[in-house]
Amino acid sequence: MLRMLYGRIGVIRRPNAVFRLLYPISQMAHPNKWQQIQIHMSAVSSYPRCELTSVRYKVDRGKFSQVCQEDIDFFQNLLDCHRVILGESDLEGHNTDWLGMVRGASSVLLKPKTTEEVSAIMSYCNQRTLAVCPQGGNTGLVGGSVPVFDEIIISTSLMNEVENVDCLSGVVKCQSGCVLEALDQHVAEFGLMIPLDLGAKGSCHIGGNVSTNAGGLRVVRYGGLHGSVLGVEAVLASGEVIDCMSAMKKDNTGYDLKHLFIGSEGTLGIITKIAICCPPRPKAVNLAFLGLQTFEDVLHTFREAKAKLGEILSSCEFIDRSSMECVELNLKLKPPIDPHPFYMLIETSGSNSEHDEEKLNMFLEDSLGSGKVSDGTVACEPSRMLYIWGLRERIAEALIQEGYTYKYDISLPHKDFYRIVEDMRDRLGNSVTRCCGYGHIGDGNLHLNIVSKEFKKDILNLIEPKVYEWTAEVNGSISAEHGLGFKKRNFMHFSKSSNAIKLMKHMKMLLDPQGILNPYKVLPET
Amino acid sequence: MLRMLYGRIGVIRRPNAVFRLLYPISQMAHPNKWQQIQIHMSAVSSYPRCELTSVRYKVDRGKFSQVCQEDIDFFQNLLDCHRVILGESDLEGHNTDWLGMVRGASSVLLKPKTTEEVSAIMSYCNQRTLAVCPQGGNTGLVGGSVPVFDEIIISTSLMNEVENVDCLSGVVKCQSGCVLEALDQHVAEFGLMIPLDLGAKGSCHIGGNVSTNAGGLRVVRYGGLHGSVLGVEAVLASGEVIDCMSAMKKDNTGYDLKHLFIGSEGTLGIITKIAICCPPRPKAVNLAFLGLQTFEDVLHTFREAKAKLGEILSSCEFIDRSSMECVELNLKLKPPIDPHPFYMLIETSGSNSEHDEEKLNMFLEDSLGSGKVSDGTVACEPSRMLYIWGLRERIAEALIQEGYTYKYDISLPHKDFYRIVEDMRDRLGNSVTRCCGYGHIGDGNLHLNIVSKEFKKDILNLIEPKVYEWTAEVNGSISAEHGLGFKKRNFMHFSKSSNAIKLMKHMKMLLDPQGILNPYKVLPET
Repeated sequence: MLRMLYGRIGVIRRPNAVFRLLYPISQMAHPNKWQQIQIHMSAVSSYPRCELTSVRYKVDRGKFSQVCQEDIDFFQNLLDCHRVILGESDLEGHNTDWLGMVRGASSVLLKPKTTEEVSAIMSYCNQRTLAVCPQGGNTGLVGGSVPVFDEIIISTSLMNEVENVDCLSGVVKCQSGCVLEALDQHVAEFGLMIPLDLGAKGSCHIGGNVSTNAGGLRVVRYGGLHGSVLGVEAVLASGEVIDCMSAMKKDNTGYDLKHLFIGSEGTLGIITKIAICCPPRPKAVNLAFLGLQTFEDVLHTFREAKAKLGEILSSCEFIDRSSMECVELNLKLKPPIDPHPFYMLIETSGSNSEHDEEKLNMFLEDSLGSGKVSDGTVACEPSRMLYIWGLRERIAEALIQEGYTYKYDISLPHKDFYRIVEDMRDRLGNSVTRCCGYGHIGDGNLHLNIVSKEFKKDILNLIEPKVYEWTAEVNGSISAEHGLGFKKRNFMHFSKSSNAIKLMKHMKMLLDPQGILNPYKVLPET
Repeated sequence: MLRMLYGRIGVIRRPNAVFRLLYPISQMAHPNKWQQIQIHMSAVSSYPRCELTSVRYKVDRGKFSQVCQEDIDFFQNLLDCHRVILGESDLEGHNTDWLGMVRGASSVLLKPKTTEEVSAIMSYCNQRTLAVCPQGGNTGLVGGSVPVFDEIIISTSLMNEVENVDCLSGVVKCQSGCVLEALDQHVAEFGLMIPLDLGAKGSCHIGGNVSTNAGGLRVVRYGGLHGSVLGVEAVLASGEVIDCMSAMKKDNTGYDLKHLFIGSEGTLGIITKIAICCPPRPKAVNLAFLGLQTFEDVLHTFREAKAKLGEILSSCEFIDRSSMECVELNLKLKPPIDPHPFYMLIETSGSNSEHDEEKLNMFLEDSLGSGKVSDGTVACEPSRMLYIWGLRERIAEALIQEGYTYKYDISLPHKDFYRIVEDMRDRLGNSVTRCCGYGHIGDGNLHLNIVSKEFKKDILNLIEPKVYEWTAEVNGSISAEHGLGFKKRNFMHFSKSSNAIKLMKHMKMLLDPQGILNPYKVLPET
């Protein structure tokens, strides 16, 4: 068996020559097709309209003013009329998250084009004590990007200009409403890449990515946004503009205020512009899809990938059999190897294809030779890599089709990474239809997903707070990359000390004394 | 000429085999010798004792209490007696920076060992309104790490325990007083490296590095500390401990408070512990030393290095002829190639020596072939690389020997990078003995240094604010990596907007209402 497998991926000087394509091209995902599906789902959900968040979670409305005709007049005077959206049906996709799990009841959506317009809106809302909900592509998973009550939605969808690309330093400056994938395609013309990639790239906005400190598929190589974002311009609750739009890689002139806005989910300010440092676009990319028998083999293979692929390792992903079965069953996609308990996607990106292939070969030969990897295939042709990536990136979409998904995005020490999936599976038994795990093993970031036919409070109570207690016991993080938003805010204490939470509340008071910026989000209820 | 040079670095399959060592081993810098010299200079300066900072810069003392016997009793009770240092001579090296440019008059130095002791000290000082100056290795260049008046010095020198190294995730947790080089040697045993390297590594503390957001030689590869520091524990002015010691690569659970303490130079809190993500230690390192005729050639070569060396480029440094002459004259070191108007150091680090050498060869052959690089040599043997690095790292030390150095550490767009050196040289003429530039061209970070036999206010007035105005006009940063400390605080407005400065002051008020933490630093005088 081993020798045969050796033959399959042991001699991949030109990997595409031996790539085993098991399915006709016609069945392969079109580059943007599934992203288009996502957008469509977000705009016109085919699922039953979900309960209002305020009802399901019994939230009390904050002491904010309610929008009146005078306010509408002000907004229509400030913006063109068609940039003030009022109709309930036009707002439906903006009141509901794409998972169909949380729903607000806003009656006004504003589409500013400039920082000055955002500033004027905030200045007015602050005087009137009107609450607002900043919204990018509305692809969040924790209810952070939709209103809870009647907050005015401020969309960045028309703030999508690229200001400048500096080829030598690799820095791009743009407005916050640029769609991630479009921005990446733009910088590609200059030989650069945005150091961030995630499933929702076809619809998420870069401003939303920065506001939520999005992680994604390539943190293992390029690090997080606190490292790669060089400059931020943000509008405070008062309407004041904080201009920290440095395009310099190094700038130690006082407190680095931009970090206040990275990951604070629009509760401290609305990001209007961004400067990001982009690495050179790789000339060679290879993607290996591996099958493994045990989780110990997964950890061993990750360690070996770090050591042997070194500087060219650009992604290291993990999928368990249950997650893959869900994709096969609901999306009619098939993995290119026979069923295994665990799968890994290992991507390399580099500047010299021959060198990269040689490194990848050595790694794979050793992994197969040692028996730690029992089957695998390699792709370097774009459409084939896209197909394999689809198996990983479309899991969330596949899960939705089975009912209600209880989603957990946690960081764990590697030794505990998969144990929580097994423990929760034991705990939940037949009360749920699926309990699976996948995610960014390279970053210690697990996506634990549990499915039942419909939302049930009893099931939720079996899962929470157990999953958070479990995570806290091993010093993990209860939200790795999705943020806290609305749904996880009351669990912050599992990952943060009381002193830290107190300081966060003081910072919120300092920057937004009336609490009008994205209320009911991030900070725990008092 | 070109063909001969080709012969020198065109065929470096094994670079050490053709490395031309022009000087006997005995003249080569011993690994740690010059760092020991630095430490010695810091402790017992051979230069005339410099004027008190408060006198030279006409500073008014803040309304803080003065240390009395009761305070000493408290500290001696809290710490062992030998960890409360009182003698003037014992404090001299801690009251003066290593450049001999600023001098305070503290009479008490405390050496806590634990977070709890730092907390108890701060709680007491806050109640008594006693000002403090946190101090690491005291290797700063802007007067941030020494007192201005009689602030109590809190040294991290005894807080040097490494708590844990996680081989799989690459995360090291340690106290803030670990010396950078010692910490790097410690993680080397686990196949890791600290993603930070700078000239003062033999004496600087990791806590000081993080507090000042130190940059150094490898930012072009590994990014800055806001990216690689995962966790921080800090003690506030009140004595409260803020524990954000996550060791997870991803943690989006509320505002990321650690960034408040990275780069705020001890004015918002005292860093007591740190968690850093370390990359794998490279298996192969090569260092090229190049001579170039024009600055345009330098930019071209940087662009080509990024494109052709890609993921293995780990440092890209720049030295002008005047800087190199200073090293030759004062330290009796010689560059391994004939004099050139400009020099570059280009380092590669990777996981496969053959691949790296092949990439480097291709890059150098093209660079020589195009005439953009006119001479060069390559080293991969540690002592030889160390010698070449000495030429770059010891420039600051060489400059000191010529008198008083007016030091500027600025970020500039690449197109303007060297123009400021030429403009300042024209402006200053014979009033100064040297005006030179070197630094991290890969990060757009120039070290502009101007020397006169002794400090003269007239010369300072010719340089400042001109150098800051010049930098601001091209949207650069007036402090790239050194910070503002005492000496640059009043120039912050050249790089930051008034709204941003106002917000910084509010943050200082929030975290340290009495202003006892490192006063007279970072924030401009009101």
